[in-house]
Amino acid sequence: MTVQESQAEELLHRFRQGDVRALARALTLVESGHPVGQELLKRLRGQARAKVVGITGSPGAGKSTLTDRLILEARKRGERVGVLAVDPSSPFTGGAILGDRIRMMRHHQDPGVYIRSLASRGALGGLAGATVAALALLEAFGFDRIFVETVGVGQSEVDIARVADTTLLVLTPAAGDAVQAFKAGVMEIADLFAVNKFDLPGGERIIQELKSALELAPPRPGGWHPPIYPTVAATGEGVEALFEGLEAHYQHLVAHGLLEAHRLERARFEVESVIQEWGRKRTQGAGDLVARVARGELSPEEAALALLDPKAHP
Amino acid sequence: MTVQESQAEELLHRFRQGDVRALARALTLVESGHPVGQELLKRLRGQARAKVVGITGSPGAGKSTLTDRLILEARKRGERVGVLAVDPSSPFTGGAILGDRIRMMRHHQDPGVYIRSLASRGALGGLAGATVAALALLEAFGFDRIFVETVGVGQSEVDIARVADTTLLVLTPAAGDAVQAFKAGVMEIADLFAVNKFDLPGGERIIQELKSALELAPPRPGGWHPPIYPTVAATGEGVEALFEGLEAHYQHLVAHGLLEAHRLERARFEVESVIQEWGRKRTQGAGDLVARVARGELSPEEAALALLDPKAHP
Repeated sequence: MTVQESQAEELLHRFRQGDVRALARALTLVESGHPVGQELLKRLRGQARAKVVGITGSPGAGKSTLTDRLILEARKRGERVGVLAVDPSSPFTGGAILGDRIRMMRHHQDPGVYIRSLASRGALGGLAGATVAALALLEAFGFDRIFVETVGVGQSEVDIARVADTTLLVLTPAAGDAVQAFKAGVMEIADLFAVNKFDLPGGERIIQELKSALELAPPRPGGWHPPIYPTVAATGEGVEALFEGLEAHYQHLVAHGLLEAHRLERARFEVESVIQEWGRKRTQGAGDLVARVARGELSPEEAALALLDPKAHP
Repeated sequence: MTVQESQAEELLHRFRQGDVRALARALTLVESGHPVGQELLKRLRGQARAKVVGITGSPGAGKSTLTDRLILEARKRGERVGVLAVDPSSPFTGGAILGDRIRMMRHHQDPGVYIRSLASRGALGGLAGATVAALALLEAFGFDRIFVETVGVGQSEVDIARVADTTLLVLTPAAGDAVQAFKAGVMEIADLFAVNKFDLPGGERIIQELKSALELAPPRPGGWHPPIYPTVAATGEGVEALFEGLEAHYQHLVAHGLLEAHRLERARFEVESVIQEWGRKRTQGAGDLVARVARGELSPEEAALALLDPKAHP
């Protein structure tokens, strides 16, 4: 047995006994790409299932506050809850954003809740492959429900929909919020909508806009019609109905045999992420090939073939 | 000579004579991934240079109107101008967005301006590899300046900065616009800022916020300090100063020998894009491998290795 295997063995033992510090350590090892983390993942992957809810939306929509309220709803029903908050990795911007996570500290004393922030390395705004790996660890640890909250808009929304069973898009009545959803093309990937800060003016209008847009949308698998929930996360108004909506979507997936397709899509996303990461690393280290592409001596395809040659990268 | 080579030869001849229809045809062939397009690219890549300006920012910031004004400034100076507008590919949302491009139609009669919309296939919100290929064609056609306008926020901003010589971030005085820039981590990649719609309340405040944030930012190559320009694209106010700012940044790159590094970064981006696209396609076609990953029988890394095996993909 190698040192790494025996370290993994010991950590695995504590992990399976439900030691939260072992979970935290495992997450750190996986996030940093440590071999012991890889070994752990190999043993734990695909062993358990949680209801995975992706929560996304534009900055300032109140995603963290809403997540905080949804945790309370899940706890009322006796569920054990894991939370992954994916943040931009920039040291320049990172600090300030984390501020509004402090609200979630109230769950700190609750052993049924585990909250973890992840910096999305490499792919700014996107869900790193490390996030999916962290999700696998949280599932193996035995959480019943896992919320994955992503900051930002654009690619990360598409990513979250590939990873989660249920995707919740959080909007507000603020002018342009709906427009932004349409422009970013996230309308198609949301399973449910929350119009948060519904106490602000314009809430009814955005609900009507969403309804009109959804009427034109292509049909969903199993005939699912994405519902829209008005919420005020700050007071908790509408959050219970939203939680029941999340549950209804999960039951819809089960009833129509769609859960398996979601899990396959997540695996596909993981494999793609690995290839993308390899491509990035190998391209970084290939100054000469890249220079020849820049001079027009080599096509990007020829350079890519050379980089992926297993003889060059044993 | 194969049929493709002779078709490419004929198109190339017209392309080099400056036939705009040949350019349009070449762009279509490249965008659709047609072999004749690949052949053309091979002959034309890396042959010429334009000043490439990336224009990005949140939806509704007025990027198209500002681009329209910048085209006029470039034309005043006798430059030939190409424009690439990268749009989300969703057929559900695509139609409406293109509306505000109609404004640019005024350049339709000007042979010194060529405007092309590109759907970003595959990577929603991101700059497709096809965009960089289109850029290479526009450069080869002999434009002096090329504006690349991206819709949306997030990953596409980072992509544009890797492709362009100069990256312009367009903000507005709207509440949350600056916050969004900080959260998305795009502060670091913008070379210049425009606070557009400066006639709206709050313009001075956002300039102060940007200045404070930039003071904390890490130093830029060659000691560049990103300037901030107030503009009203609708009336043209401030656009001449902004254009001079773009030119000053380009001269800064030349003076500090940084232009070459930008071109290398673009080539690197192209190679990475190719590998990412291959990964996506091969993973789509590998249902069995993906199912084994989902069941925990295979790690994503093992599946990726199998997919990239050249023996399996000659």
